[in-house]
Amino acid sequence: VLDDLLDNFRKHNMPEKVIEYCLHSMNYNVPGGKLNRGLSVVDSVAILKGRELTDEEYFKAAVLGWTVEWMQAYFLVADDIMDSSITRRGQPCWYLLEGIGSRVINEVLIMEGAIFQLIRKHFRTEPFYVDIIDLLHEVTYQTEMGQLVDLITAPENNVDLSKFSLARHSTIVVYKTAIYSFYLPVALALLLCGFPVEKRNESDPDYFKIALDILVPIGEYFQIQDDYLDYSGTPEQIGKIGTDIVDNKCSWCINTALARANPTQRAILDANYGRKDLEAEARVREVFCEVGVDAVYVEYEAQSYARINALIDAVPEVQNPNGDAVLRRTVFRAFLDKIYKRTK
Amino acid sequence: VLDDLLDNFRKHNMPEKVIEYCLHSMNYNVPGGKLNRGLSVVDSVAILKGRELTDEEYFKAAVLGWTVEWMQAYFLVADDIMDSSITRRGQPCWYLLEGIGSRVINEVLIMEGAIFQLIRKHFRTEPFYVDIIDLLHEVTYQTEMGQLVDLITAPENNVDLSKFSLARHSTIVVYKTAIYSFYLPVALALLLCGFPVEKRNESDPDYFKIALDILVPIGEYFQIQDDYLDYSGTPEQIGKIGTDIVDNKCSWCINTALARANPTQRAILDANYGRKDLEAEARVREVFCEVGVDAVYVEYEAQSYARINALIDAVPEVQNPNGDAVLRRTVFRAFLDKIYKRTK
Ligand SMILES: [Mg+2]
Ligand SMILES: [Mg+2]
Ligand SMILES: [Mg+2]
Ligand SMILES: [Mg+2]
Ligand SMILES: [Mg+2]
Ligand SMILES: [Mg+2]
Repeated sequence: VLDDLLDNFRKHNMPEKVIEYCLHSMNYNVPGGKLNRGLSVVDSVAILKGRELTDEEYFKAAVLGWTVEWMQAYFLVADDIMDSSITRRGQPCWYLLEGIGSRVINEVLIMEGAIFQLIRKHFRTEPFYVDIIDLLHEVTYQTEMGQLVDLITAPENNVDLSKFSLARHSTIVVYKTAIYSFYLPVALALLLCGFPVEKRNESDPDYFKIALDILVPIGEYFQIQDDYLDYSGTPEQIGKIGTDIVDNKCSWCINTALARANPTQRAILDANYGRKDLEAEARVREVFCEVGVDAVYVEYEAQSYARINALIDAVPEVQNPNGDAVLRRTVFRAFLDKIYKRTK
Repeated sequence: VLDDLLDNFRKHNMPEKVIEYCLHSMNYNVPGGKLNRGLSVVDSVAILKGRELTDEEYFKAAVLGWTVEWMQAYFLVADDIMDSSITRRGQPCWYLLEGIGSRVINEVLIMEGAIFQLIRKHFRTEPFYVDIIDLLHEVTYQTEMGQLVDLITAPENNVDLSKFSLARHSTIVVYKTAIYSFYLPVALALLLCGFPVEKRNESDPDYFKIALDILVPIGEYFQIQDDYLDYSGTPEQIGKIGTDIVDNKCSWCINTALARANPTQRAILDANYGRKDLEAEARVREVFCEVGVDAVYVEYEAQSYARINALIDAVPEVQNPNGDAVLRRTVFRAFLDKIYKRTK
């Protein structure tokens, strides 16, 4: 995959320095994650087809999987500079490296452009090429809108809890995380397996809407877990120290606490949330504890698991028009099982 | 055009605050330029068709014209933060406005995404939809590569003239400016008029390559003029004070001077170029004068005009497959005449 891009640069006579630089950037920023998103494309294709993939099928699914990882990489690089973060995946954030700074903006655009170069190279002649492109545009646009809502709602240096609410939390999570992390891999797998975007007969199911309606709640559940673990998990468990409280994050925990706080507790939250100060953080944690964030979470998790399972049970297991793949419930159950009751 | 996008936001239940914010950003950043790039799509379509456009044709050409203006807008917004610029088109740069800063990175991505939303809405059912998308991806990718080469070659706070050369200048100019400013508007006009990207018969001309091979030299000529005017133009003439010398820009002037400087002059350039210091700037200007940058420019302009005219004269004035448009030389001549011997 990388070699493809380097060939592409050479074709354009880019100076060797530039090629070296890009290679360095890709190696620094793309690997190191858990690759969950990327692998889930490959896994989903295998489940839809109901058999092991041929080498060619595997390769194509893997290219789409890398697309998702790559997108994730540039979202994170961009998020880190906007959040003034210090480390990512155990190394300093890319923008902090010498001489980069705001230049990351161009590198993010290049990483995004590289995705479409890759897709074009491998899928240009497929009937679903234009659907892949439209899907990627739609999903990145939604993710960027989610990021914008997040940035406006919870700027790090201007705490204003009146902008927070569980509804706002849901908008941010759905747009900024759930769609690209959960819906996108399955939607790409559906396209690769020949599920059509547009109905051919009135009675056809809308495969993509079915997937969206299940994967968005799964993504929301995932992010709420993430928010809850940031607050409740020990560093040994989650592999980092939670900083959502001091960073003024619009997290599920603060929004749940706000919804249940009495005026005294609310005043404590207003005065202490988002301050870079251990004592302020401790006071916020105390209110979280008082209003029962832990119990609410346990109840939320049980309900949410049951609700998503019911959604999955209702999926019609229909064939694609070619008859060589089936929209199996296992696709969705695999996602849910991977995250249910995770503690890291 | 703006209304379309706002509808799109509302469809997604974006909070009103976010919609307001986007509207403000678009109004701030998109208008105010000379709209040359956008208008040239409309003008080119009219020339290719050889008649006045119907309202619908005009509308479609205008949408593509706005696409180019919009792209220009986000390139400039991104360029300004990367260059730490202060003003743009007579107002403070967007990223300097309160609370924006590195958040521009997400806004640039949204502006880019909005372009594809717009194109999708108006062209999704056209046979050339996928060609428009591919063209925009290719051109933005090339522009970003040009920007990267520029950033690596001429970082503002690390002067190293050994990285400069007329060849490097040409790479930067072709990729960063010429392709999107000159080739893109005509390529979009060709697509809208039904000129096919792929040959149907071996003997068909490659319309897009013909356009590229003329418009890239025109764009290079335009940028060399721009660089020369930055050095030689009076503020009354060019409407701003030239800053290329103090900003360590990889301009045609410095590269021409480097190619002609003797060791003493070279030492003066090394010691004084890219310094924020009026005396240093004056010493650089003196060397430019000694090596004859002005005379070289006059000769370059005459040669370049003659060479481009010869290229235009060699264009085969062929019809498109439908027979309702002709690749007329006037398309190219209109660009050249607009810039030849301009003094601002
Ligand atoms: Mg962050
Ligand atoms: Mg963030
Ligand atoms: Mg988190
Ligand atoms: Mg600039
Ligand atoms: Mg610049
Ligand atoms: Mg200039």
